[in-house]
Amino acid sequence: MSPLLDATIAAVRPADPAVLAEAAAHQDRLTKPRGSLGVLEEVAVRLAGSAGVSPPPMPVPAALAIFAADHGVYVRGVSPWPQEVTGQMVANFLAGGAVANAFAAQMGASVTVVDVGVAGDLPPGDGLLVRKVARGTADLSRGPAMTREQVVAALETGIAVAADLLAAGARCLVAGDMGIANTTASAALICAYCDADPEGATGRGTGIDDETHTHKIDIVREALAVNRSLCEAGPLDTLRAVGGLEHAAIAGFILKAAASRVPVILDGVIAGAAALAAAALAPAAVDHCVAGHRSAEPGHRLALDHLGLRPLVDLELRLGEGTGALLAHPLVCAAVRVMQDVATFDAAGVTDKEA
Amino acid sequence: MSPLLDATIAAVRPADPAVLAEAAAHQDRLTKPRGSLGVLEEVAVRLAGSAGVSPPPMPVPAALAIFAADHGVYVRGVSPWPQEVTGQMVANFLAGGAVANAFAAQMGASVTVVDVGVAGDLPPGDGLLVRKVARGTADLSRGPAMTREQVVAALETGIAVAADLLAAGARCLVAGDMGIANTTASAALICAYCDADPEGATGRGTGIDDETHTHKIDIVREALAVNRSLCEAGPLDTLRAVGGLEHAAIAGFILKAAASRVPVILDGVIAGAAALAAAALAPAAVDHCVAGHRSAEPGHRLALDHLGLRPLVDLELRLGEGTGALLAHPLVCAAVRVMQDVATFDAAGVTDKEA
Repeated sequence: MSPLLDATIAAVRPADPAVLAEAAAHQDRLTKPRGSLGVLEEVAVRLAGSAGVSPPPMPVPAALAIFAADHGVYVRGVSPWPQEVTGQMVANFLAGGAVANAFAAQMGASVTVVDVGVAGDLPPGDGLLVRKVARGTADLSRGPAMTREQVVAALETGIAVAADLLAAGARCLVAGDMGIANTTASAALICAYCDADPEGATGRGTGIDDETHTHKIDIVREALAVNRSLCEAGPLDTLRAVGGLEHAAIAGFILKAAASRVPVILDGVIAGAAALAAAALAPAAVDHCVAGHRSAEPGHRLALDHLGLRPLVDLELRLGEGTGALLAHPLVCAAVRVMQDVATFDAAGVTDKEA
Repeated sequence: MSPLLDATIAAVRPADPAVLAEAAAHQDRLTKPRGSLGVLEEVAVRLAGSAGVSPPPMPVPAALAIFAADHGVYVRGVSPWPQEVTGQMVANFLAGGAVANAFAAQMGASVTVVDVGVAGDLPPGDGLLVRKVARGTADLSRGPAMTREQVVAALETGIAVAADLLAAGARCLVAGDMGIANTTASAALICAYCDADPEGATGRGTGIDDETHTHKIDIVREALAVNRSLCEAGPLDTLRAVGGLEHAAIAGFILKAAASRVPVILDGVIAGAAALAAAALAPAAVDHCVAGHRSAEPGHRLALDHLGLRPLVDLELRLGEGTGALLAHPLVCAAVRVMQDVATFDAAGVTDKEA
């Protein structure tokens, strides 16, 4: 595919089974009833397996990368928002005025915005990386959204952004997105990777009426039909056929985190669709992912089930930008901190439950 | 009842309807699709209504109070843990070795431990308030758990602890608990306040087998039968009949937070049962409560439904100590921060969705 992509995929290793067992045994020695931290115990064990050490390192600092891009399928009338909003929201991120900024400030995460394919030109700004692979994708309902060169370039962009953030000290990556019409491409990706029907996988995005929703389902169906042979040709061709530039970039971002044994917290349906692509390219990548939240989009549930991930936050968010993933970050930190800080029954002099 | 309790109850006011409307309107002006933050939008609006100002103040710093007490019903064999564990865990809290300490450190919350009725003597320690109303309750399956004087003293203890934490600068209170056998009393309280059947309200606590679970249900049924007339006499008598000293203290703690228009984040089934008591004494107290999480205990769902609260975290925790509530704190902060920080469509120059 490309030397960088090939090397990244080759570096992705599954969780260490011995460390997983050691971490699970440690959980049972801590001064709490066994299993009483529910899903958080699994998260801590998961991070230990990912890192290859128990207890796992604290996943701080966290770095959010918001990958922004436009979609050719926008012309088919799948969104009530003007396409200009993609670029306007990038400006809003850079000015610190979006929800992602508020959540990142709350969680102590840095924010990097990556223009991987916004249609319009953006004024330069602090925190903006201009890595424009194209001025949006082609219309996926008429043919492939991307060329082979474009999808590889977008994947490599994600890999490079992750590498830079890790080199700067990030110990937890958070994947966010911005792109008007990107829930349409997400639904198509989920259908293609999970063999799902468009009706069950296509949601209302940021809010559309019944008529537009029906039309959006038809568009996803058209996209899958026109790109059928490409979708059957392999995971990379599936991604280029019905994905977005930000999906490809997020897939690369996930692959690099996984290759580096650093956890990546997934956001909603866009990151979920991108994670399907990453997992199709390197199945062990999932071992390094944490599902931050479950979005209101129906396709997201399908994606998470396919990946075998259980979301930590389930509050009907449908915003994107990485917001759902940021909310999960303190929960992940809390899970790890238990492994690091909590006393054992022996050490604390607390009597264990009668057998 | 008592001058302090009467005055506290009288000071509890409902959410301000004008502020609720103003906060909801503000949410709709922010640069995000309307409603896209799901439940967090309701939380922010709720806190505005509670505080009487929009946007509401940030709920920081947070202060966790863990109310510890023992239960006479322990002698009926409802728990597999030795009763000494209540006191041992208090020592663990003071040494910083419990999960509540790890979570509080993660969320930046202070920890205060209140001995409101531990059976044994505890060595003095930093952060321990000895406010022993009794050395545990009487066996609620044989008669009232508390005298009238005891329940009032425990309520007053909770009020005083909340008042001291607020005076010290806390802007968010978190209610935690420790007490072997306290899920039995919680189940009885939930049955009494929600008119529920013990079979549906009684769970496995920190982990019991089928036989003990069946026995525990029978004990709750006995408690309700033997205390029937007292439970029908009014909310305070219900609390003293089948509650615990920590339930009464947490109810007082909630009432004082509500009277002070400061949000209180509820933990699991023990705090939920205590909140039922607080709401029975002062219905508007609920307007100042946030349900931190839903525990694995079946009675907790009944309590939250009765209170009309939706939990923020739902990760199968069943630990108590305030742990579930602490996990919700950053989510509540994030919800408020959106109201304070996020730009409006007008201010950010972002085009709104087509009508």
